[in-house]
Amino acid sequence: MQIPWRRLLLGNPLPSEAYAHQRLNKAKALAVFSSDALSSVAYATEEILLVLMTAGVAAFTLSMPIALVITGLLAIVAASYYQTVHGYPSGGGAYIVAHENLGAWPGLIAAAALLIDYVLTVAVSITAGVVAVTSAVPSLFPLRIELCLLAIALITWGNLRGVRESGTLFSIPTYAFIGLFLTLIAVGFVRLLTGSLNPIAQPALPVDAAGTAPLTMFLILRAFASGCAAMTGTEAISNGVSAFEKPEADNAGKTLIAMAVLLGIMFLGITYLARTVQVMPVEHESVVSQIGRAVFGSGPLYLALQAATALILVLAANTAFADFPRLSSILSRDSYAPRQLANLGDRLVFSNGIGALAFLAALLIVIFGGRTHSLIPLYAVGVFLSFTLSQAGMVRHWQKTREGRWRTKAAINGVGAVATGLVLLVVIESKFTHGAWIILVLIPLLVTMFRAVNYHYRDMREQVTLKSADRRVGEHWGMPQQHKVVVPLSSLNRASLAALRFACSISQDVTAVIVDVEPQSTARVQEDWLSWYAEIPLVVLTSPYRSVVTPLLSYLEEVDQRDPERGLAVVILPEIVPGRWWQHLLHNQTTFQLKAVLLFRQERSGEARIVINVPYHLCG
Amino acid sequence: MQIPWRRLLLGNPLPSEAYAHQRLNKAKALAVFSSDALSSVAYATEEILLVLMTAGVAAFTLSMPIALVITGLLAIVAASYYQTVHGYPSGGGAYIVAHENLGAWPGLIAAAALLIDYVLTVAVSITAGVVAVTSAVPSLFPLRIELCLLAIALITWGNLRGVRESGTLFSIPTYAFIGLFLTLIAVGFVRLLTGSLNPIAQPALPVDAAGTAPLTMFLILRAFASGCAAMTGTEAISNGVSAFEKPEADNAGKTLIAMAVLLGIMFLGITYLARTVQVMPVEHESVVSQIGRAVFGSGPLYLALQAATALILVLAANTAFADFPRLSSILSRDSYAPRQLANLGDRLVFSNGIGALAFLAALLIVIFGGRTHSLIPLYAVGVFLSFTLSQAGMVRHWQKTREGRWRTKAAINGVGAVATGLVLLVVIESKFTHGAWIILVLIPLLVTMFRAVNYHYRDMREQVTLKSADRRVGEHWGMPQQHKVVVPLSSLNRASLAALRFACSISQDVTAVIVDVEPQSTARVQEDWLSWYAEIPLVVLTSPYRSVVTPLLSYLEEVDQRDPERGLAVVILPEIVPGRWWQHLLHNQTTFQLKAVLLFRQERSGEARIVINVPYHLCG
Repeated sequence: MQIPWRRLLLGNPLPSEAYAHQRLNKAKALAVFSSDALSSVAYATEEILLVLMTAGVAAFTLSMPIALVITGLLAIVAASYYQTVHGYPSGGGAYIVAHENLGAWPGLIAAAALLIDYVLTVAVSITAGVVAVTSAVPSLFPLRIELCLLAIALITWGNLRGVRESGTLFSIPTYAFIGLFLTLIAVGFVRLLTGSLNPIAQPALPVDAAGTAPLTMFLILRAFASGCAAMTGTEAISNGVSAFEKPEADNAGKTLIAMAVLLGIMFLGITYLARTVQVMPVEHESVVSQIGRAVFGSGPLYLALQAATALILVLAANTAFADFPRLSSILSRDSYAPRQLANLGDRLVFSNGIGALAFLAALLIVIFGGRTHSLIPLYAVGVFLSFTLSQAGMVRHWQKTREGRWRTKAAINGVGAVATGLVLLVVIESKFTHGAWIILVLIPLLVTMFRAVNYHYRDMREQVTLKSADRRVGEHWGMPQQHKVVVPLSSLNRASLAALRFACSISQDVTAVIVDVEPQSTARVQEDWLSWYAEIPLVVLTSPYRSVVTPLLSYLEEVDQRDPERGLAVVILPEIVPGRWWQHLLHNQTTFQLKAVLLFRQERSGEARIVINVPYHLCG
Repeated sequence: MQIPWRRLLLGNPLPSEAYAHQRLNKAKALAVFSSDALSSVAYATEEILLVLMTAGVAAFTLSMPIALVITGLLAIVAASYYQTVHGYPSGGGAYIVAHENLGAWPGLIAAAALLIDYVLTVAVSITAGVVAVTSAVPSLFPLRIELCLLAIALITWGNLRGVRESGTLFSIPTYAFIGLFLTLIAVGFVRLLTGSLNPIAQPALPVDAAGTAPLTMFLILRAFASGCAAMTGTEAISNGVSAFEKPEADNAGKTLIAMAVLLGIMFLGITYLARTVQVMPVEHESVVSQIGRAVFGSGPLYLALQAATALILVLAANTAFADFPRLSSILSRDSYAPRQLANLGDRLVFSNGIGALAFLAALLIVIFGGRTHSLIPLYAVGVFLSFTLSQAGMVRHWQKTREGRWRTKAAINGVGAVATGLVLLVVIESKFTHGAWIILVLIPLLVTMFRAVNYHYRDMREQVTLKSADRRVGEHWGMPQQHKVVVPLSSLNRASLAALRFACSISQDVTAVIVDVEPQSTARVQEDWLSWYAEIPLVVLTSPYRSVVTPLLSYLEEVDQRDPERGLAVVILPEIVPGRWWQHLLHNQTTFQLKAVLLFRQERSGEARIVINVPYHLCG
């Protein structure tokens, strides 16, 4: 059943053998896995300035020291993840590392934190990308939520087509962004040195920027916590090692270093320029856009910068679209998440995970009104929680393996764990009332769900295993059995004829039953019965309260108790199948109700009632 | 399966025999069927003034002449319906009368108009009732939509309990309203005669009441069309004749006259008082509330008036809750609407119709922001369309029966038809752009749906009738048949064991099938197969694109073509049934997909594929 539009949209199905070949070279992998980390330079500086501004413009002098601390932290985290990439060449996300080395609970906490962060990555990147567009084209501002949803739809489509094509599709904007951003910084520095770059003439300060708060340590930490948004996405490569070309670990490690160096240069450069040209964060234009105008003027270079920023931000979401489905499928494989999440679609991607991510991110954007700034406080908790668990897990990993220079490696990861753990505490403390509490509620909820799903799957496997099953199977088989067959009817027609015919073909003990809800129609059936089905007994059940299901259930119990060794009565339901979907609303309401009740009902004997549908198709 | 809270909420189930006794005496029937008509005096005068105001305050002198014309029209319509009640003692709604006398199309148009109007009756009455509350207690104004929804919930509950109790429940407020409103008019007139009633000191005119439009004929007609809202609900009694105590027609006729006289007195009285005390319509207080304050002061009598007005308006919706489900069930009985609408619930009310009405009215209130004035233009079209069709139908009825003084009766109905037809044209003309067009789009849509449903049911009856069915039934029956049975599996467990056991009990030609999506799991099944099911052949299907359904369907076709005279292959599906609802999300996705595909698929031979579910229940 191939549907043509499906092929047009998603491409031809790929055979399973193609899976191994769907790998990324370093250049494409940088585009797929680094867009999240790199693109965060488009908003991280702005988030620092927004917090400092509450203490007045003078506090802006602190932006550069804060950015330097964050860059140092980035170096530590990148060094840590470099170890992870080599320790786990098959792909070492925080979940796997924490689960294997620290145990199930830390692993699930890391998984919950990561899943939440992937959703936030999509939401934050896409809203920030749309801000880049509306900075250049203010008339689109009222349409920003619609633009966000459109962007999500496009990325979802790209990912449903498959990972190789995503790499090709997303390389161009990523490299355009890197090129333009580095050009911006270079031109900016040259113009600074030649003295031709002047501070931006600021419009009157907005009211809420009056800057009356005292410059406390708490405020500085809050600015630092906001700036840490620059580090999100650093872990993406370590999750995706298995998508690299062989040798996976080496390629992934090199890509990771390249990414960290680029990120550091871009973040420090843009923060320095922001200080020098005295940018002030305003609602309708991003900080990067203001710097772009100051350095490039409002000409084509500026527009290209905004376009590339918008594209890389919108595509940064793609990192999450690569990782969220992958992590879901790993959780599913470990029986912590519903099995559907592990199904490879016919384009060799985890289609269900992609769909779930797109839905959740769109929901978040609509709820938070498309405002990046409102989403940021939710963002960092999960990131640093998973960083910390992952580094701590690596320390245990090296202690267990004790290979080569394991003490050095453990020390590097140990420093990473302590540093990111401290940042986590700072983030929780300084952002708690701004939204971080939501994440601290969500993570335990998700972990509880993982445990419940896991318990259910394990319990089910124990219940259905054949290990202790009755071996007298062969004895009965091949011996046809006289089932007690009950056929409920509401009128006499070809559908009931088909049901009765099948009933008689599998058993000689068939009873037709009619529930007397409308006396006239019952009388008509009784009248016609003899001429059509004289051989089959017809039982009429009274129903003073006009329910069909209740009298039928009592009757079935009665039949069950007759000759109990012959098992429960088998129910055969005639079902009229109309040709069009809307016509289903006009039929079979009672049949559906009956099927649901019979399927979910635990019979007293513990046996299961078998229900047979005999469809009767109507034409057109 | 009686659920205790259901009994508490709705009362014990009523046996079918109780149906005939659930009748209303005249006093209760007036409360149930007249609240719609009577309560419209709470807003009709205001709607006239709102239109006239656009031409300046001087135009208010026209309100009394307009009210007199509407009262005359009311007399004509009441006389017409008095004929209908006697001509159709079993209940003569516009649908029945138009359908029997004018044909199917006019009948369905009347039915569509009525159904729409019942929904609007609920929406208009409830929003106006909430205005009566917020006029007295302005602090509740922001909660008006919530109050509307609460009121709908309460009425729905009353109606689901059954019609007799609705009569008792709703008598007190109806009679309280009639008493207080007549007192208001009487006291008002006495104070006028004694010269102690002074015009209300008006606050500064609101901006939109500047009154700059010229007083054209079109504007006067629009004021008249708005005032016709007073006549809505006049037909309610004629629809509900069968709910009266015997003799139904006489009792209904007397109740109708009482209602029309009361309505005329109240409408003229309040309009006259509004003129005399020079009321000006404002947004936050209703006209009746202003008059009440002027006549009674702001004391307890005023508050009682507002409370009674609110109650009767909210309960006026009850008229629709009596009639909408009744009309739906009649349409359903005539195969124009889904059958579920004809199901009497266990409290002897048409529960599905009641639920549908509640949902649609709530939707309308939310969409129109709880504003009565925005809903009024939608209201009158359907009312006068059904009036006209019903009267015209009665003219034909008397021409056909030619009993007694049929010429007089036909003449009375003829006058009614012409008068209401003219009003219909006025309403469409003057209200078209204000919302009447919505109704003119909806009615043809509904009629098309009725026809489609009707066509489908008739077509189905022809397709399933036994009249031309194969009579060789007896020959085959009693002869067990060797069905070709196919059991699709995904793994070997107790669920598959149960399915295979049942398969072997009904046939000796059983084949197990596994689709090779995960090679490891397939290999495991093949390994274990011999020790468990050596007697049954196991077929492994390859699936390069990882679909389970597609290879299975091709395999089934292959089996079907083998020994075609033995019919299509029967499919037996093992199904794991978990104990909790959320666990269903974790199971059987493929089984559900397969069942849906097999059920909806028309096989080439035209035969229907039989599908058997063998459930396996998990504990807790």
